[in-house]
Amino acid sequence: MNDVTSEALIHATTRLSTAVTEGFPNSRKYYVTGSRLDIRVPMREISQTPTQTETGEIFNPPIYVYDSSGPYTDPQTSIDLKQGLPNIRNAWIVERNDTEQLSQLSSEFGKARQLNPALDKIRFASLHLVENRKKLEILPRRAKPGHNVTQMHYARRGIITPEMEFVAIRENQRLDLLRADLQYQQLLKQHPGHNFGAHLPKTITPEFVRSEIAAGRAIIPANINHPELEPMIIGRNFRVKINTNIGNSPVTSSIAEEVEKMVWSARWGGDTLMDLSTGQHIHETREWIIRNAPIPIGTVPIYQALEKVAGHPEDLTWEMFRDTLIEQAEQGVDYFTIHAGVRLAYVHKTANRLTGIVSRGGSIMAKWCLAHHQENFLYTHFAEICEIMATYDVAFSLGDGLRPGSIADANDQAQFAELVTLGELTTKAWDQDCQVMIEGPGHVPLQLIKENMDKELQVCFEAPFYTLGPLITDIAPAYDHITSAMGAVNIGWYGTAMLCYVTPKEHLGLPNKQDVRDGVIAYRIAAHAADLAKGLPGSQIRDNALSKARFEFRWEDQFNLSLDPERARSYHDQTMPHDSHKVAHFCSMCGPRFCAMQITQEIRD
Amino acid sequence: MNDVTSEALIHATTRLSTAVTEGFPNSRKYYVTGSRLDIRVPMREISQTPTQTETGEIFNPPIYVYDSSGPYTDPQTSIDLKQGLPNIRNAWIVERNDTEQLSQLSSEFGKARQLNPALDKIRFASLHLVENRKKLEILPRRAKPGHNVTQMHYARRGIITPEMEFVAIRENQRLDLLRADLQYQQLLKQHPGHNFGAHLPKTITPEFVRSEIAAGRAIIPANINHPELEPMIIGRNFRVKINTNIGNSPVTSSIAEEVEKMVWSARWGGDTLMDLSTGQHIHETREWIIRNAPIPIGTVPIYQALEKVAGHPEDLTWEMFRDTLIEQAEQGVDYFTIHAGVRLAYVHKTANRLTGIVSRGGSIMAKWCLAHHQENFLYTHFAEICEIMATYDVAFSLGDGLRPGSIADANDQAQFAELVTLGELTTKAWDQDCQVMIEGPGHVPLQLIKENMDKELQVCFEAPFYTLGPLITDIAPAYDHITSAMGAVNIGWYGTAMLCYVTPKEHLGLPNKQDVRDGVIAYRIAAHAADLAKGLPGSQIRDNALSKARFEFRWEDQFNLSLDPERARSYHDQTMPHDSHKVAHFCSMCGPRFCAMQITQEIRD
Repeated sequence: MNDVTSEALIHATTRLSTAVTEGFPNSRKYYVTGSRLDIRVPMREISQTPTQTETGEIFNPPIYVYDSSGPYTDPQTSIDLKQGLPNIRNAWIVERNDTEQLSQLSSEFGKARQLNPALDKIRFASLHLVENRKKLEILPRRAKPGHNVTQMHYARRGIITPEMEFVAIRENQRLDLLRADLQYQQLLKQHPGHNFGAHLPKTITPEFVRSEIAAGRAIIPANINHPELEPMIIGRNFRVKINTNIGNSPVTSSIAEEVEKMVWSARWGGDTLMDLSTGQHIHETREWIIRNAPIPIGTVPIYQALEKVAGHPEDLTWEMFRDTLIEQAEQGVDYFTIHAGVRLAYVHKTANRLTGIVSRGGSIMAKWCLAHHQENFLYTHFAEICEIMATYDVAFSLGDGLRPGSIADANDQAQFAELVTLGELTTKAWDQDCQVMIEGPGHVPLQLIKENMDKELQVCFEAPFYTLGPLITDIAPAYDHITSAMGAVNIGWYGTAMLCYVTPKEHLGLPNKQDVRDGVIAYRIAAHAADLAKGLPGSQIRDNALSKARFEFRWEDQFNLSLDPERARSYHDQTMPHDSHKVAHFCSMCGPRFCAMQITQEIRD
Repeated sequence: MNDVTSEALIHATTRLSTAVTEGFPNSRKYYVTGSRLDIRVPMREISQTPTQTETGEIFNPPIYVYDSSGPYTDPQTSIDLKQGLPNIRNAWIVERNDTEQLSQLSSEFGKARQLNPALDKIRFASLHLVENRKKLEILPRRAKPGHNVTQMHYARRGIITPEMEFVAIRENQRLDLLRADLQYQQLLKQHPGHNFGAHLPKTITPEFVRSEIAAGRAIIPANINHPELEPMIIGRNFRVKINTNIGNSPVTSSIAEEVEKMVWSARWGGDTLMDLSTGQHIHETREWIIRNAPIPIGTVPIYQALEKVAGHPEDLTWEMFRDTLIEQAEQGVDYFTIHAGVRLAYVHKTANRLTGIVSRGGSIMAKWCLAHHQENFLYTHFAEICEIMATYDVAFSLGDGLRPGSIADANDQAQFAELVTLGELTTKAWDQDCQVMIEGPGHVPLQLIKENMDKELQVCFEAPFYTLGPLITDIAPAYDHITSAMGAVNIGWYGTAMLCYVTPKEHLGLPNKQDVRDGVIAYRIAAHAADLAKGLPGSQIRDNALSKARFEFRWEDQFNLSLDPERARSYHDQTMPHDSHKVAHFCSMCGPRFCAMQITQEIRD
């Protein structure tokens, strides 16, 4: 950031590259309307070409896929980053009549940033005032005194919120349409022996969503100050989600790049995003990201707190940390990683580890504990943190500060001692109706993964698990999106609700856009394969459609149905570039004479 | 091939690019000598820099890793593709005194190719005659009448061959040295709580190798006509291996590219290689590859047989297939994929599949069976095939012609009916002391993988399983090295002995060198993680060494110990290019202020 001027920064921030927003081939944005007109749930409809037979064409139904990309891929929505996205949740929040709009920011830091004229040029909100006088600066909301505004609070009182209905529709992905499609039913009958659509009858209802949230088994991260959000749910009885990370470390990167990376990662399938920025303008960067984010945004507030004390962990205090929580909650952060489980007594348990403490937040809190020889202030002030979370509906992501950083340190005493404490904190958070998920490792060999999941369910009372990978070997830097996605697919199958992605640059440097894409796709594969393995209703529809297209040599459909149509097409075209090859009954792998699928079709004929 | 002249082809074939043969950083070729001087087992020794402490430097022992790259990475061996590699096994084979050198080739096809003057310019052996008159053309060997020359035959008679001793040393990878290293022992004591070297005491003995081969649980593919081979073993009580495929389909590729790809895939960690060429010069291509291959080479003879009948499966006959087997066995092919399990009665079981038959060999045999309405001639002539295999020690790779080609078709009746037949054929092959492995799927969702392994062990009597992936979802063409490596690591953990790699181009086109590298590394990750999960002796040494280097900010050692040092280094250098950064106590991911490992070291200090 130090080497870009504010002018250049804003100019870049207000333009997204076409590659980030263009639609997917043969796809259109499709909204399903819920019980009220302002519940409009986005999906991507992928149309298919008909199957060619000797007796004529046979229709192939469109396939509906989960769409995390937000309005950026909707040609009907005009995008202006300076305006931010439409406030689709605003009416829902206002109608509940349990929040109030503030007349000024509550945090000291937030106020100071707002009044600093040097930041006018890069501040999101002030751009509205300066360049768009029709729109007033919008101040944040908080719960009215005595009120609790979490989705868990509503769920426990039997209330189905619009957010809950939204995610129920979203999880179902038009299974109803496919069930009504006669041609599709016929296809089912042709393949009685296998799993083709075996799970179709099941449907996610809004009431089921409510009951899962009430039980603590799922969360909807949705800060009342992030009304631009398209709600999504994290829980092991729903589609497995993936989280992506971005962040400008002090060494590199700018606001412009970070906003574009957020849109980019959501485009490829990132369900949530953590802004792990640590530079000098993290407050302003975060504002730009949230105002333009259709997905939940998470942060690790201790990173910013450390910035405020010039990088000296021992100078951290509860008071300034509290101010940071409120500052970020009023910007609209949807979930906070809180390393409250790094207790003083656990730090020595890492002494004999091969790689000590590898969590940034964990090492910061460990250093604070040792410097003061006091209990972690996040642990001692946990009840007050819960109050703040309940005031804005920020979900807890209870951080695993003592996660293993190598295969050698997996499943050790330090890791599991912290996990038990996270379970204890979960019940405290639930006492205040706060939503909770639990962060997990890290580096774990394949045979020790299941123990992680089983223990988490047991000691954290089935709160959603949210794991980083885990990496199942340490020997492949530059390929850690793969080593970790292998662990992720297994822990996802065992019950992890959200997988935090890892890019090829893990352990080596900051990811660029290509790395983000590679990381997201590797994790979408893991999440989807876990859905298949768990038997999630309808999860196999896309696999079956793509395989049918492949078998029938409908190359264009095969590309369009894939997770990355652009790359699939370009790989095919490297050896068979001509349009005529898109209907060829073979590919360059085997050539026309040796194509098994071609021979099989001849056998059937 | 059609658009390159023979001249250009040879010229290209005799030159390997530097990238294919250059050594790995900080590594040297290291040979362990066995009970006789001509047993020289190659390994790669990676030296490390010392750990810097305030009280001085601490030595870090060199790490020894399995080395499949052959003499190409040994600067002491001069490489001349026209000469082929040194015949390191020749003395062992001759000494056994159970083979005889032929005075002419036995197959009609081989003879015809040899006499065809149009092929003089591209033939491997004739180059020797023309350009190197000192060396006579070497004719192949076969077993003397009444003799059986398979490794299984020797093993069952209690004979430990040099090949068996070779692989025993190779599997151990200098664990003895590490056990003797005092500094390493100290490191073990410092980390009593975890797995650091917990498996070190175990050692693979030549007698154990012999007993596993005698029991049919492992094979050493080593044709007596491939004396250039560095022996390796395939069995689930050994290091998990990976197979790579190359092949010029008629659409693209040349001999030169194929030889270079073989060296390239072995360099990155391919343990065996299947030559799946289907062009017009496959006989000559194969000769070039085998004469220069330090790894076992497999083929699917039915592909070449089909070429000989102009691509019409119904014209295949046992007699010409038999001639093809002998032709290839005398060239030195180490294992044949034989689709003898595609029985006539099973073909109709694929009728309701979503994707029918996707194995090339399977579809060819199915078409033959239906065209003649006769039992598969590979099944009816299986005993005669065994005789040929025993004459040259070609191992069976019993092909899974009915493997599923989509998630929907996994674990169905057709697949498992064939598997039972493969088990029946296994016992027939074992009756003639033929070595056998069993090919497996394909496309299988995660939750159905274990059933494949369990069934294989049961119905095929623990013969080594050799699987293609399996892919655990169909929706990610262009990333199928990842979807399949995820399945591979699981089935490897469950007991698969060798994993057949898949490249990013799978389903789309023929892989180039970059694709081969990506595929091999993804599979080396899977194989290694499976070794870790199975608790293979010493498998964690490299993980621990790399993690220790990472924790101590020995960046160069971290790169050098990784599976792909070049890429790890280049990714790091994208954001931190200066030499000073190679000793920096942080990377660009977090920057100096936020580095958890740096803070942890401060805590420890």
